[in-house]
Amino acid sequence: MVPMQDPTFDDVAAAAIRIAPYVRTTPLLVMDGLSQRLGFPIECKCENLQVVGAFKARGAANAVYALPEPVATRGVATHSSGNHAAALARAAKLRGIPAYIVMPKGAPRIKRAAVEAFGGQVLECEPTLAAREAAAETIVARTGATLVHPYDDPYVIAGQGTVALEIASVREGPDVILVPVGGGGLLAGTALTVRRLWPHTRIVGVEPSGADDAFRSFSSGELQAQTNPQTIADGLRGALSARTLRMARAHVDAIVTVSEEAIIAAMRLLFEQSKLVIEPSGAVTVAALLEGKVVGRSAIVILSGGNVDLDTLPW
Amino acid sequence: MVPMQDPTFDDVAAAAIRIAPYVRTTPLLVMDGLSQRLGFPIECKCENLQVVGAFKARGAANAVYALPEPVATRGVATHSSGNHAAALARAAKLRGIPAYIVMPKGAPRIKRAAVEAFGGQVLECEPTLAAREAAAETIVARTGATLVHPYDDPYVIAGQGTVALEIASVREGPDVILVPVGGGGLLAGTALTVRRLWPHTRIVGVEPSGADDAFRSFSSGELQAQTNPQTIADGLRGALSARTLRMARAHVDAIVTVSEEAIIAAMRLLFEQSKLVIEPSGAVTVAALLEGKVVGRSAIVILSGGNVDLDTLPW
Repeated sequence: MVPMQDPTFDDVAAAAIRIAPYVRTTPLLVMDGLSQRLGFPIECKCENLQVVGAFKARGAANAVYALPEPVATRGVATHSSGNHAAALARAAKLRGIPAYIVMPKGAPRIKRAAVEAFGGQVLECEPTLAAREAAAETIVARTGATLVHPYDDPYVIAGQGTVALEIASVREGPDVILVPVGGGGLLAGTALTVRRLWPHTRIVGVEPSGADDAFRSFSSGELQAQTNPQTIADGLRGALSARTLRMARAHVDAIVTVSEEAIIAAMRLLFEQSKLVIEPSGAVTVAALLEGKVVGRSAIVILSGGNVDLDTLPW
Repeated sequence: MVPMQDPTFDDVAAAAIRIAPYVRTTPLLVMDGLSQRLGFPIECKCENLQVVGAFKARGAANAVYALPEPVATRGVATHSSGNHAAALARAAKLRGIPAYIVMPKGAPRIKRAAVEAFGGQVLECEPTLAAREAAAETIVARTGATLVHPYDDPYVIAGQGTVALEIASVREGPDVILVPVGGGGLLAGTALTVRRLWPHTRIVGVEPSGADDAFRSFSSGELQAQTNPQTIADGLRGALSARTLRMARAHVDAIVTVSEEAIIAAMRLLFEQSKLVIEPSGAVTVAALLEGKVVGRSAIVILSGGNVDLDTLPW
């Protein structure tokens, strides 16, 4: 079973070894144009080029491969409909175990297809959080599968921490590292790594202003609800958990919010200048630089994913 | 002055050292989806992620930095309007010398802007090859600048050969390497490197069937004219020179052609699955695999560039 403790840096290091055969080392690229424009060096970590098109491949692989054999054979389950679902289906397929993915009726066809392409079993439910949780509980009770939460899971958080570990294997710490925040799994994992390896690097979470629960929770120290999020960044509509808030408060320097206009401008800049296909959620860190919300002597931005519908690009 | 001899592998090795400070080592990525679909491993060399968004940065930097100081100070000139023009302007700016770029009236605004962003001086002329050559000759006579041809130049060819050299620094030779063919500079440079380092690797050039001069010239052994090319792949509308044909005939195994439909399908696949922004010319090698024009036990494709108008994507 999943332990209840918060993960530590040692768990990130163990995750890196565990998942190495199943994920990619992604490129870290200099952003020439943006660096010149803003006057300090900026590099981007291209998790859009990760398998399944997002960093979620890391946490899901870590959670799946950490399961002891008799537990693993019963499979895994989740009620995410986004990149975590595809990542979990892929990791389960590689390990040869079933993946049960609860999705709301009317979820985008492309997301369902991504899960099914990896052999995941999609279970439809009504489009409410209560219905999703109930459906997941039912399938877990029936099959004995292990529920793998998209971010409130120590193995998932430790897996996401390998993004920063990989950067640290090739360069010194920057002045500041910017991380997209949805449920806070990537932020919490990154914080574990950065605090251990680069003690002087500032860690800044970035969130759309139309889905600013993390900003409010971080500021107040109390978990705030995410009510009716309004943002193009579909991957960042989730809310922090008690665990990811606690970890953020322990290690993170700031959380800033960005406008929808800046997110779209950042996407366009990444397509046009960096030649990278980026989903809106993946572009928020660049948006924070464009809006001047974060400045520094040097910066690394995590580009979290590239799963965007090419027929409805926002320009 | 530019020597008249054909370049050799030693020139490629010298180019790699000369241009290292001015260009990027680009990622070589596994194409999981396509490999699975076609049944053999395929990797892509991402020259769309190169500075100026194309491999042309390499040849231009080599040509500019190979000039002796007193010649260099008089500047460089070209009558390309594409990626070579921007690449030459950038290399000249880095060296602190003038770049004179002859462009036909009515050239796309984005291409002119790319040249001017690097401080290149744009000179307009009538949109005919004769007018472009005459304008280039005039500026060379007036300024003493060195004309740097986009592909019929030993230093440019040697610079383009560093793409394959970089691949060889990280892996063994594949069964086949696929290279886009316009004027043949990248093909000739790649051939020098591959023939020396990977004697058993097949070298295949890929060209749009609507601009198939290289295919016809290669087959007949005689330079054939490129008459009225009809292809979305604007970077591949040029014709081989006597030099690039000679080098191709000496080293290359085959040239194949691809349809416009396959080029667009390949672009879409690269955007969607590989999360890479690719221009039509950059996608022809993947198009050849999609159409089954080339098969093998393993393949590397060179993705040559990513400079595409995002407001008029062909889907």
